[in-house]
Amino acid sequence: MLGKCLENVKEKTPLIHNITNYVTVNDVANALLASGGSPIMSDEPDDVSDITSICGGLNINIGTLNKNSIEAMFISGKKSKELGHIVLLDPVGAGASKLRTETALKIMEEIKPHIIRGNVSEIKTLALGSGTTKGVDADAADVVTEENLDSMVEFAKTFSKKLGAVIAITGAIDLVADSERCYVIRNGSPIMSRITGTGCMLSGLSTAYAVANPDNITEAVAASVCLMGLAGEIGVSNMKDGEGNSSLRNHIIDAIYTMDAEKLIEGAKYEVR
Amino acid sequence: MLGKCLENVKEKTPLIHNITNYVTVNDVANALLASGGSPIMSDEPDDVSDITSICGGLNINIGTLNKNSIEAMFISGKKSKELGHIVLLDPVGAGASKLRTETALKIMEEIKPHIIRGNVSEIKTLALGSGTTKGVDADAADVVTEENLDSMVEFAKTFSKKLGAVIAITGAIDLVADSERCYVIRNGSPIMSRITGTGCMLSGLSTAYAVANPDNITEAVAASVCLMGLAGEIGVSNMKDGEGNSSLRNHIIDAIYTMDAEKLIEGAKYEVR
Amino acid sequence: MLGKCLENVKEKTPLIHNITNYVTVNDVANALLASGGSPIMSDEPDDVSDITSICGGLNINIGTLNKNSIEAMFISGKKSKELGHIVLLDPVGAGASKLRTETALKIMEEIKPHIIRGNVSEIKTLALGSGTTKGVDADAADVVTEENLDSMVEFAKTFSKKLGAVIAITGAIDLVADSERCYVIRNGSPIMSRITGTGCMLSGLSTAYAVANPDNITEAVAASVCLMGLAGEIGVSNMKDGEGNSSLRNHIIDAIYTMDAEKLIEGAKYEVR
Repeated sequence: MLGKCLENVKEKTPLIHNITNYVTVNDVANALLASGGSPIMSDEPDDVSDITSICGGLNINIGTLNKNSIEAMFISGKKSKELGHIVLLDPVGAGASKLRTETALKIMEEIKPHIIRGNVSEIKTLALGSGTTKGVDADAADVVTEENLDSMVEFAKTFSKKLGAVIAITGAIDLVADSERCYVIRNGSPIMSRITGTGCMLSGLSTAYAVANPDNITEAVAASVCLMGLAGEIGVSNMKDGEGNSSLRNHIIDAIYTMDAEKLIEGAKYEVR
Repeated sequence: MLGKCLENVKEKTPLIHNITNYVTVNDVANALLASGGSPIMSDEPDDVSDITSICGGLNINIGTLNKNSIEAMFISGKKSKELGHIVLLDPVGAGASKLRTETALKIMEEIKPHIIRGNVSEIKTLALGSGTTKGVDADAADVVTEENLDSMVEFAKTFSKKLGAVIAITGAIDLVADSERCYVIRNGSPIMSRITGTGCMLSGLSTAYAVANPDNITEAVAASVCLMGLAGEIGVSNMKDGEGNSSLRNHIIDAIYTMDAEKLIEGAKYEVR
Repeated sequence: MLGKCLENVKEKTPLIHNITNYVTVNDVANALLASGGSPIMSDEPDDVSDITSICGGLNINIGTLNKNSIEAMFISGKKSKELGHIVLLDPVGAGASKLRTETALKIMEEIKPHIIRGNVSEIKTLALGSGTTKGVDADAADVVTEENLDSMVEFAKTFSKKLGAVIAITGAIDLVADSERCYVIRNGSPIMSRITGTGCMLSGLSTAYAVANPDNITEAVAASVCLMGLAGEIGVSNMKDGEGNSSLRNHIIDAIYTMDAEKLIEGAKYEVR
């Protein structure tokens, strides 16, 4: 089914409205194009309702939120739900500031996104309703490990059930859960944390995968997480002597571009719990 | 003459004020630097009048417009015209939202840009005064083909005459028209649509080419369109096994950087109708 | 000591709050990650106080300032000083517009940054309290040369003494001065001016180096300037046939990533006056 998820993106070219941060926005756009999707960006309250209406899904990323873009997130989010579009929330830095935590919580309450994707610190902050995060990266103390895996899987399923949303927690081990199943994914490379934007790119991809596979959102999100992790592995393996994180960024997006169903199926490392 | 247009940019280093979207702004800056021009970005109403004054031309791109930057576009546009500077409008997403369509139409009316560059859906929207566009890409139905070429050339010339502006319609076949002549350009590669920002980069380049060649604006814009298309061809031919759209972006900007008059003259594929 | 400065960054992973322009922000983030630091971006007045509080230092870059981000600069700047954090000011385009000049001067007065890093035109503008700059690049007339080196070293020391701040003036020859010593640095390559953002990346790096080496700020900033220049040299030497400024950008960030203490010590070209 992962392969079918990928092929549906390439066939349907889902148009994704991204309200996202200006740090990694170019990489999000190129990652979406690499996957076979199509990106559009708009964060002006007077513009976003029309833009959302012509798209198939909405990716809300609060990485460099401001008063104007927050207003746009709510307008687009409500319009998307009204139209039956997929909405994903990426709560970048939830726990790192009051504004981020409160904005993410309010989006959860008022928009009820179909998918929430973040690192473990961010997701825990949302589950607890408060928290402290070390910047935009997960706290070292907050990591999914083989030791705490059972309880983290349970946490993800319970949180998913409470919200009625697919929960994607990404890190060294990735979890993609609905209320009944949790994909435990072991693709990726630690070096991916040395480039900015792998999480943001993944949120764009997850939105596109869900939009192109509306009947299997959990699996579609899991497929996008496997894709990103596998692209990271391929990217790292393509690094030549003297190359660093800038080349790695290019290799990863290139690997998304050249991925096909067969490679994804062969390279995906996951189990369902 | 194409070669002379290129050399004038390299000799004069035109300084271009860009009010552009935050998605592709870095690529626009690097493409301008690659061509021999010099970029400066500013979109704060209180800043732009001074910035416009020290520049040679203005590139207005509405790709992620907001209330603040729209105000800046009008201040800079009027200042530029007052100073006799070249102004280019890139109506990104005109037809996709009311705000974009109306902003582009108002800029046309009040600023009267010297050059308008967009895809065929955007330009048709401006010509009709309304329209529907599928996001920031041209509609499949809206394409310049060998079959409708005669009527599209006529359309471009007529629209140019009505506005007193050079009209550049880019896609599989590119048209650059004034009221009397239309360059029909067949450079480029379909893969260029798999990276974000080729249109935005071109708008920056077209502005720089026009500023450095003020007596031959139509030809200067045509030269920049040939340059971008040829850089795309060279970029695609430089893609190695396993490379995708991220590497292609680098190859294209690199090809702009290494372009010279001889290569441009040899590679340009155009006719004048 | 340069090598120790580098190692301290890699060991301490300083978290840097960047209020910076949207043109080069992605490169700033990746350069910081390449060096071993960790970036976070936020420019919303309601968000920045919390973000500053969890960081170790603040990098203020006025490259695409607007009313909202200017407010954020003052909030974060004051908070940083209150918390004893390092603050760096990069006065991009000071002299090119009244708003930029006045904002930079006001930040100097009210925040009293520990480090100011700019090109010679920008720094002269700040020293004189006014000025004219050709865009965001230094005026040709305003260059540190072997001929005016003695007087420029004196100027940098005097200005540093007046402000109580480390002054970094970068260009063909770089100067890093406090009131008593001036590092004269001859790393780098003229081709670096053909990519956007080398100055912005350096400002991020200088902040990280100062944060990780609080007892030797002048030397830490000098180390970061040597690092950037040397990365530029390595980047240029890694350019292959047909490559241009886009590949150079990647090579430079890669060279920061692969730099170690030994390479930095061996490659740094500086004297102290």
